[in-house]
Amino acid sequence: MIRIAVDCMGGDHGPSVTLPACAAFLAAHPQARLLLVGRPEVLSALPPGLDASRCTVVPAAEVVEMDDPVEVALRRKKDSSMRVAIAQVKDGAADVAVSAGNTGALMAIARYVLKTLDGIDRPAIATQMPNAAGGATTVLDLGANVDCSAEHLLQFAVMGSALVAANGRENPSVGLLNIGEEVIKGNDVIKRAGQLLREAAARGDLNFHGNVEGNDIFKGTTDIVVCDGFVGNVALKASEGLASMIGAFLREEFGRGWHSRLAALVAWPVLARFKRRVDHRRYNGAALLGLRGLVFKSHGSADAFAFEQALRRAYDAAEARLLERVQRRIARAAPLMATPSGESPAATPL
Amino acid sequence: MIRIAVDCMGGDHGPSVTLPACAAFLAAHPQARLLLVGRPEVLSALPPGLDASRCTVVPAAEVVEMDDPVEVALRRKKDSSMRVAIAQVKDGAADVAVSAGNTGALMAIARYVLKTLDGIDRPAIATQMPNAAGGATTVLDLGANVDCSAEHLLQFAVMGSALVAANGRENPSVGLLNIGEEVIKGNDVIKRAGQLLREAAARGDLNFHGNVEGNDIFKGTTDIVVCDGFVGNVALKASEGLASMIGAFLREEFGRGWHSRLAALVAWPVLARFKRRVDHRRYNGAALLGLRGLVFKSHGSADAFAFEQALRRAYDAAEARLLERVQRRIARAAPLMATPSGESPAATPL
Repeated sequence: MIRIAVDCMGGDHGPSVTLPACAAFLAAHPQARLLLVGRPEVLSALPPGLDASRCTVVPAAEVVEMDDPVEVALRRKKDSSMRVAIAQVKDGAADVAVSAGNTGALMAIARYVLKTLDGIDRPAIATQMPNAAGGATTVLDLGANVDCSAEHLLQFAVMGSALVAANGRENPSVGLLNIGEEVIKGNDVIKRAGQLLREAAARGDLNFHGNVEGNDIFKGTTDIVVCDGFVGNVALKASEGLASMIGAFLREEFGRGWHSRLAALVAWPVLARFKRRVDHRRYNGAALLGLRGLVFKSHGSADAFAFEQALRRAYDAAEARLLERVQRRIARAAPLMATPSGESPAATPL
Repeated sequence: MIRIAVDCMGGDHGPSVTLPACAAFLAAHPQARLLLVGRPEVLSALPPGLDASRCTVVPAAEVVEMDDPVEVALRRKKDSSMRVAIAQVKDGAADVAVSAGNTGALMAIARYVLKTLDGIDRPAIATQMPNAAGGATTVLDLGANVDCSAEHLLQFAVMGSALVAANGRENPSVGLLNIGEEVIKGNDVIKRAGQLLREAAARGDLNFHGNVEGNDIFKGTTDIVVCDGFVGNVALKASEGLASMIGAFLREEFGRGWHSRLAALVAWPVLARFKRRVDHRRYNGAALLGLRGLVFKSHGSADAFAFEQALRRAYDAAEARLLERVQRRIARAAPLMATPSGESPAATPL
């Protein structure tokens, strides 16, 4: 049995999205139980499709809004659905928590409530992006850390390797995001991170491929791409922007005049297959790694289908015992991962 | 009359691409003259379509290879077609130089031969990306500078504004690439850059919109997006990778079985229009800004159509007196742009 604490109030749409997603998810996962966290008056009437026998409502009076500053979410809303969901993991009542709320608040609360693992200075956010090799590339960090040391990048590589291994890909390859493949490229932090990653690979702690460039994320050159949160966030959002633009252009061209509309009709099955392949909703659900408990983040704008994917990812991670895998890998790589003395391990919130 | 020095040997394909592009370009630009720089034995037989009366062959015995280290290109190949082309600008024989060669070598040689403008510590590379607003977003820097100070980012904003204004868009808006729109987001360099940009805007030196995120590049939120070279390079290459992947998926789906192939036939005019809209070759031609002379860089893998676009961009920039525009804007913003004392203005080569 896997127990998921769901922040039902989070995201742009709240319960109107999270509850239908929970219903669909439970129907497909007979071994799952859900803790539905949120305002009791909202959760008193569960939708008809939801298997209530496997759900427990956990009341939380407040909601972290999408634009709440981290301080407000952390200090003033102590009974928020987000915080109560994470507390279920801390207390052992749930194996994993899922929220579509404000990323900065989620990371700060998760860090505050759960604390970081020994050997990890900074938790990271990892997500998957589809690649041309037919699989997905796991990219981290995606915005939790805007200034990273070489040791942080090594920590991300170790945690990312545990995540991908938990997904069934043993000994996944790691690429270091850079502006060229040669060892001499990049700034000092990147060069030193490359050195640490090579040492870790030589010790058998991970499978380091070398430097990769932005296009390698979508080529699928490596299973994992490691970068600081600023770069990862820009790459992710630029990709989202480009994909939207291309989608809009395609729709516009297929809507331009009667011949184009006829062509769209004829090409419908092809376009539907294409759309399914590039559907970013299938990749929804980012892991917060490096904490003493499992937390997954859904895109704030997720619809029920997308939110269900985040629930699936959380379920799979809990089932594959991701937390223990991360801890084992960190313990093994610990000698290389220590932050140079003098640096405070303070998080830079989003 | 505009005179362009063309490095005919540069790029993945050399003269087999550059010469046909020169022929097409000359045919469309009656006021242009070309200095064709390269090995005399290769340039002795010009292709039949090329108007030889408007071309002068300038011999250069050596060629900078795509994988030559910067040191080799700069110190050992003093008679390279790349260097001789840039020297034509320095000597006043050409108004602008164009090369499809190795970016790192081109920047280093251009910097060495032409020197930087007063007030500019580091030249930047600026290119255009298509946006959903129907225009193009100018992004800089794209890889010349991997560690930037706030003052460098301001310099990029000023130079980018001159470039876009030269393209006919007066008072273009500038966005600072960040991981959120709020002023408090980002690392210390970004926050300080935001402050400098706001001061420059208050003085009327530029039109600062505020922070933008990765997706804004393709939304077209601002005319210009400013970032350090590491981030810009990753964003550009990630976008190239994603566009290739989407293109490959679309081709695969339209090639899967007889119904799909029939649909492709029916949809052909629509797909051709779509392809034209997202054709990255139309955006080929990046400006090297901040030098005492105009240099444009074509993608190394450019075909003749793409290389011709780079020639057009170079022509338009020379015709619009881009160099003087950049100098004027820099002089105006000079009080804000000075690098904090103690920092050496050394370039970090690609």
